[in-house]
Amino acid sequence: MSDEKKKEEAKYLFNVPKSDFSRWYEEILEKADIIDKRYPVKGMLVWKPYGFKALKLMRRIMEELLDKYGHQEAYFPALIPEEVFEKERDFLEGFSGETFVVEGTLTKKLGRRLLLRPTSETVMYYMFSQWITSHRDLPLKIYQTVNVFRYETEHTRPIIRVREIMNFIEAHTAHATPEEAEAQIKEGIQIYKKFFDRLCLAYVILRTPKWDTFAGAEYNYDFFTLMPDGRAIEMGSVINLGQKFAKAFDIKYMKPDGTYEYVYQTCYGVSERALAITISIHGDDRGIIFPSEIAPIQVIIVPVIFKGEQEDVMKKCLRLRDELSKHFRVEVDLSEKTPGYKYYYWEMKGVPVRLEIGPREVKNYEVTVVRRDTGEKRRVPDSALVEEIKRTLEDIDRNLRKKAEEFLMSSIREVSSLEEVLAHMNGTLIKVPWCGDDDCGMKIEERTGLKALGYDPEEECKRDCVICRRPGKYYLWIGNKY
Amino acid sequence: MSDEKKKEEAKYLFNVPKSDFSRWYEEILEKADIIDKRYPVKGMLVWKPYGFKALKLMRRIMEELLDKYGHQEAYFPALIPEEVFEKERDFLEGFSGETFVVEGTLTKKLGRRLLLRPTSETVMYYMFSQWITSHRDLPLKIYQTVNVFRYETEHTRPIIRVREIMNFIEAHTAHATPEEAEAQIKEGIQIYKKFFDRLCLAYVILRTPKWDTFAGAEYNYDFFTLMPDGRAIEMGSVINLGQKFAKAFDIKYMKPDGTYEYVYQTCYGVSERALAITISIHGDDRGIIFPSEIAPIQVIIVPVIFKGEQEDVMKKCLRLRDELSKHFRVEVDLSEKTPGYKYYYWEMKGVPVRLEIGPREVKNYEVTVVRRDTGEKRRVPDSALVEEIKRTLEDIDRNLRKKAEEFLMSSIREVSSLEEVLAHMNGTLIKVPWCGDDDCGMKIEERTGLKALGYDPEEECKRDCVICRRPGKYYLWIGNKY
Repeated sequence: MSDEKKKEEAKYLFNVPKSDFSRWYEEILEKADIIDKRYPVKGMLVWKPYGFKALKLMRRIMEELLDKYGHQEAYFPALIPEEVFEKERDFLEGFSGETFVVEGTLTKKLGRRLLLRPTSETVMYYMFSQWITSHRDLPLKIYQTVNVFRYETEHTRPIIRVREIMNFIEAHTAHATPEEAEAQIKEGIQIYKKFFDRLCLAYVILRTPKWDTFAGAEYNYDFFTLMPDGRAIEMGSVINLGQKFAKAFDIKYMKPDGTYEYVYQTCYGVSERALAITISIHGDDRGIIFPSEIAPIQVIIVPVIFKGEQEDVMKKCLRLRDELSKHFRVEVDLSEKTPGYKYYYWEMKGVPVRLEIGPREVKNYEVTVVRRDTGEKRRVPDSALVEEIKRTLEDIDRNLRKKAEEFLMSSIREVSSLEEVLAHMNGTLIKVPWCGDDDCGMKIEERTGLKALGYDPEEECKRDCVICRRPGKYYLWIGNKY
Repeated sequence: MSDEKKKEEAKYLFNVPKSDFSRWYEEILEKADIIDKRYPVKGMLVWKPYGFKALKLMRRIMEELLDKYGHQEAYFPALIPEEVFEKERDFLEGFSGETFVVEGTLTKKLGRRLLLRPTSETVMYYMFSQWITSHRDLPLKIYQTVNVFRYETEHTRPIIRVREIMNFIEAHTAHATPEEAEAQIKEGIQIYKKFFDRLCLAYVILRTPKWDTFAGAEYNYDFFTLMPDGRAIEMGSVINLGQKFAKAFDIKYMKPDGTYEYVYQTCYGVSERALAITISIHGDDRGIIFPSEIAPIQVIIVPVIFKGEQEDVMKKCLRLRDELSKHFRVEVDLSEKTPGYKYYYWEMKGVPVRLEIGPREVKNYEVTVVRRDTGEKRRVPDSALVEEIKRTLEDIDRNLRKKAEEFLMSSIREVSSLEEVLAHMNGTLIKVPWCGDDDCGMKIEERTGLKALGYDPEEECKRDCVICRRPGKYYLWIGNKY
């Protein structure tokens, strides 16, 4: 094939500077077959098989973690009667604008209104009140992976802000004492840390200021990271519901001494947004770089064929495919494209390890192993291949994690005045000394035009509140937010 | 513990004659923690962890089969714009009475109507028309596991006839020629056979008569079995859609010769109903009997403790639990109930193998192994335990399959006149000689008050049509139907 032809082919491949993040994000999702945006309802997406596979692998990680920490999977209906949905006032107020209503079929009115779950607190807790009667029923730790529906009024954005969240993994727990609920919050945070670590993501964990707390909650912690465009994004929430829902839904248990008390509840959820963040953080100008655990294909084998030596090369490719598939998700690209085209293509798709096999590799009983993240090439003897791939995948994960960590950490700024905020507004998470009062917190948002993300209750603040100049109690983290 | 106390405990356990099937079914689903019916919307259920686990195992079997046969998993939105839903007229007519409509949120009208999918033909094929352009894009074989919504006007029945089908596994394919679509129908049937075989179920495969064909289809085959109450139930459908949807959705491909043609399509689906059938067919008066592949717990270990010898027994139970869990889904019942209570309890829950371990078993390095299906007890040396359990599980599956087969086969009657039908009406599948004309077929339904299930195009009919007395072409299978 001529150089012109190769160039021609390469032209069609992905090459968008990630610095132009908005375009990069929209284009890579389509080009790499993650989703299809051409569905005719705004904020609703079609997931293509390649994207769905990554999502399913991600979902398995979370389900495995929840199982390990003693949660049980269940299923609660998607349609909620209005009278159940209304029971907790703050929750109702928080969600009513976003919640879709069903009033009938194409031919008939139902005579009552059913709501499409925007999240499942109400339907679950309605049942919890029937399941929990004694202290022996506690703790109760339940989760489900479902689609939920929210009529987002802000700009939708593929996967990140959608109207059907199709992979919401929501855990809900009930406990006998506030201390146990507190401990559960810590466990929830622990689970999410492990989850995001396995996706090689970096994060900060912040307690949401009171005025932004989840509807119906006592308090909540959010995991945040910074997207490549410098905007903060919420990755997941861990929420202490206290007894609010328990009182609204009458979830009581009998203590060993025969008296009754309302349970203490927590909940936490992540969604397909975690995949969007993983793709966004790790990718580069050439496309996606999947961390090993969620790579739909971990190893792609590309035959490098010259006339006359085709047979041996193909034989080796297929033999390696069969051997390696005992250890990895592996495929061989048998299409009629040029090797160069295939390199570009599978780089775009984010496959972490590429094996190139040509006549030289056949002759020398070796394989050329190429890393997606650094592009580094290495010739590896056949006998050492499995170990080398394992090591390479681990090393890629480590490298992705390190880069993510560095990017996030280098984007955090501590300031001592509102003026300083303006100087650091772009692409940073800003820590603003704050007395802890709601009034001052909301003023910080107002005067900077940035969103308060939360604060770390464990971190001491040594400066004065930028608003009232009293001694600071916390740093309020602010930033541009998705 | 006194005998009275034991009797007292046993009283609370499951003991409903399966001959009283309707009661048996409703009670076992609740008692064995499969579902909770107390959700306040008719036809919508809560799945409890134990039931959900069985369902998930079942789902894995089907997904594994679909993957193996070259299908790819994807996801399509749950809400369908009315203008997309309306494209195929027969389909619209067939589903409009059942299809829920969303017109707004709790605070706002949307200005357009969105429909909650009752099945996903329309949303998928809208996308297929964009995905398929060339013969190289074919065949396309896609599936998804999703919740679908149907406002059933008939009596709902837990799991079997519901308004939210929460585990609908629907496959959809597109092909270049009618022959390839035909071949796909055969493959679909093959997949479902394997699926139901692994659930140890028996079935007949019948082609649906024209007047009952799936809305928008050319023809379809249904898998049927007979429930313990003598009513026929549809287990799954394999549907040849021909080019109807392709024309409605403009799904065309370019042939190698440069001309265009509409694709030929098939689809097939099963749901959680398959689990309801599995539970119904295999269970007995004492409760569920799960086939091994979907048993949430395959082996339950029950310590049989006498005073003073507790420690050794418990040690052995826990050691076995750890060893066996490398091979099986195994649990040990450490609760404070009596061994007898535990026996009843886990029998009700359908656990196929029980291990009883007391001082004698400790002393003799053996285990008492009890089969759920026959109740047979056997003492097995510790060293042979893993193999013995494997063999026992296989044998239980074989036995369940054989009994299911016998039950179904013994319930099929061939008649030669309508009068004979009346004599066999209860609890049978009746094969009625039929000329093949719609008119006569519908008259058979009318005059017997039974539902036509379909016919086997391969089976020759040697008698005269019971209506017109011309030579019969097929047997029309009729019966009471769910």
